[in-house]
Amino acid sequence: MKKPASELRQDLVSGTWVVIATGRAKRPHAFIREKRQKFDQPRKTCPFCHLETQEKPVLVYYRDKKKKDWSIAVIPNKYPAFTPLKELDDHRVGPFRVVNGVGFHEVVVMRDHRKQMGEFTVEEIEEVLKAYQERYLALMNQEFINYISIFHNHGREAGASISHPHSQIIAFPVIDPDIHRSLDGSRRYWLTNHQCVHCVQLEWERKNKKRIVFENKNFVVFCPFVSRTAFELRIFPKLHLPYFEKITSEQRWDLAEAFKIALGKLYYGLKDPAYNFFLHTAPCNGETHDHYHWHFEILPKTSIWAGFELGTGIEISTIEPEKAAEFLRKTKLPEQN
Amino acid sequence: MKKPASELRQDLVSGTWVVIATGRAKRPHAFIREKRQKFDQPRKTCPFCHLETQEKPVLVYYRDKKKKDWSIAVIPNKYPAFTPLKELDDHRVGPFRVVNGVGFHEVVVMRDHRKQMGEFTVEEIEEVLKAYQERYLALMNQEFINYISIFHNHGREAGASISHPHSQIIAFPVIDPDIHRSLDGSRRYWLTNHQCVHCVQLEWERKNKKRIVFENKNFVVFCPFVSRTAFELRIFPKLHLPYFEKITSEQRWDLAEAFKIALGKLYYGLKDPAYNFFLHTAPCNGETHDHYHWHFEILPKTSIWAGFELGTGIEISTIEPEKAAEFLRKTKLPEQN
Repeated sequence: MKKPASELRQDLVSGTWVVIATGRAKRPHAFIREKRQKFDQPRKTCPFCHLETQEKPVLVYYRDKKKKDWSIAVIPNKYPAFTPLKELDDHRVGPFRVVNGVGFHEVVVMRDHRKQMGEFTVEEIEEVLKAYQERYLALMNQEFINYISIFHNHGREAGASISHPHSQIIAFPVIDPDIHRSLDGSRRYWLTNHQCVHCVQLEWERKNKKRIVFENKNFVVFCPFVSRTAFELRIFPKLHLPYFEKITSEQRWDLAEAFKIALGKLYYGLKDPAYNFFLHTAPCNGETHDHYHWHFEILPKTSIWAGFELGTGIEISTIEPEKAAEFLRKTKLPEQN
Repeated sequence: MKKPASELRQDLVSGTWVVIATGRAKRPHAFIREKRQKFDQPRKTCPFCHLETQEKPVLVYYRDKKKKDWSIAVIPNKYPAFTPLKELDDHRVGPFRVVNGVGFHEVVVMRDHRKQMGEFTVEEIEEVLKAYQERYLALMNQEFINYISIFHNHGREAGASISHPHSQIIAFPVIDPDIHRSLDGSRRYWLTNHQCVHCVQLEWERKNKKRIVFENKNFVVFCPFVSRTAFELRIFPKLHLPYFEKITSEQRWDLAEAFKIALGKLYYGLKDPAYNFFLHTAPCNGETHDHYHWHFEILPKTSIWAGFELGTGIEISTIEPEKAAEFLRKTKLPEQN
């Protein structure tokens, strides 16, 4: 009998399957970026180094206000996917439902043109998270807004079109089935088992230890048992918290430390890989979602979604998350703060 | 009041949303590949030019059998994601469901090292489709197989690791929620409206004409109203047919012609873009799926799924499918056959 080349693992929340290719698995070192594809646009023409060419910021944090020395600026996206409109136009075109693109599309611009989030101090990350929270709180009460997505694309392979470090915030009116599925999965588990599905996973991961990368008082960083990509990381609050926007300043500091470790270990361990990270939190659609447990997901861009993934929704990961976590645990960060 | 920068269109089957960015839409010509990133591995070391280094073919079509002059060979993948095993091991690891990677992973190898499917004749494509069908029929009756995915990755950006043209067939035991969602959407519509959701779309598209690229007796090629990527194409049989594997030779010929037009127009119109295509057909899990309508989806790799898409499941398309279809209708193919 042949040895299995892979193992199918099912996500507890969404029910989706992931193939962990053990047979053709790579060693963790195979993911270290050898040839660095330069993605470093010149400062001279960088729109984020010249904010005067952009729309007026909606939020600015200053290091020294008198000298106009800012550290974080949130600006409306010059080429927005959604725009503020006076009406929500929900109509039919043939058999299809169509909604006009009501919403907000903002960019969280970091000050330094080259310093990546993987190189940030805890203080610097904490400030970014504070901007996320502040803009979330401002946008969630805007008319027609039912969901807010906060995300960060790092590197050209991860879809960044501007190399200057920045995150994005998109607030919009519809809730996609992908988010519904995640909410429904969490609600169903809550109703059936009287427990949060994420709390159950966290408890098991923390007992199991193999995939844990870091813990502090309030947060856990781990490579999930059902990892969609190699070196996928998740950051979860240990407490059952449905709403990111309610994070306290103490929790925010611990989250910043967790982020620093997570992004720092990717940056130094794998030599600055491209990645996407995003927030998953309960929608701001007026309903209560007490069953939910907010978190961040970090997906390094280690492979391309091709025909199989597009056609079936099943992803293939070529490293066991246990080995990825071990590698990241061993990765040392330079002493800094 | 600002002009909407986009329109949200909801897929009839899966319920997923797509942002058609009209405000920042590009002209069709912006998608023509300017700098061709060479992806052309040498023949000398190409595994598919040296089949003797591979596992024995499971199917070969010959142009001249005596001279061993083959045209199509289907071989087991050397680095399979799934392997034939004697048992299906469905078990629990902590709170998770885990299944061993039982299945088949085959490669459909075309003869010519450089000739892309976009340059194939109708006859050549018909032979590829025949190989798909023949292997589907052989694999669907294997133990533990509930779904078979047939797909083709063209170009490095679309995830191809070998430049020699080839398709892949993966047969496996689980049905992912992505496929379930598509089946459920189709079943729900069937039960509620006593009509096939795909037939309704097809009828509307054919009446509307704006997004139609090509029609023959049995097939339609069009850019769907809810396009996930720029220049997305779908090929549907006009008749309500749930099972691809039951295709007749007359239908197969018409499908080959539809494929030739679809891939040829992408190849000549956009100058050989990378793309993925895959089959969506009713599962072979022993249940009946008479509500389903099989089809092929062709997704050119015109953008990268980044944080927003990964976090929300909503895709952003930067060209209106109406304009993509118009561009492709005008694209001329060289006279050949």
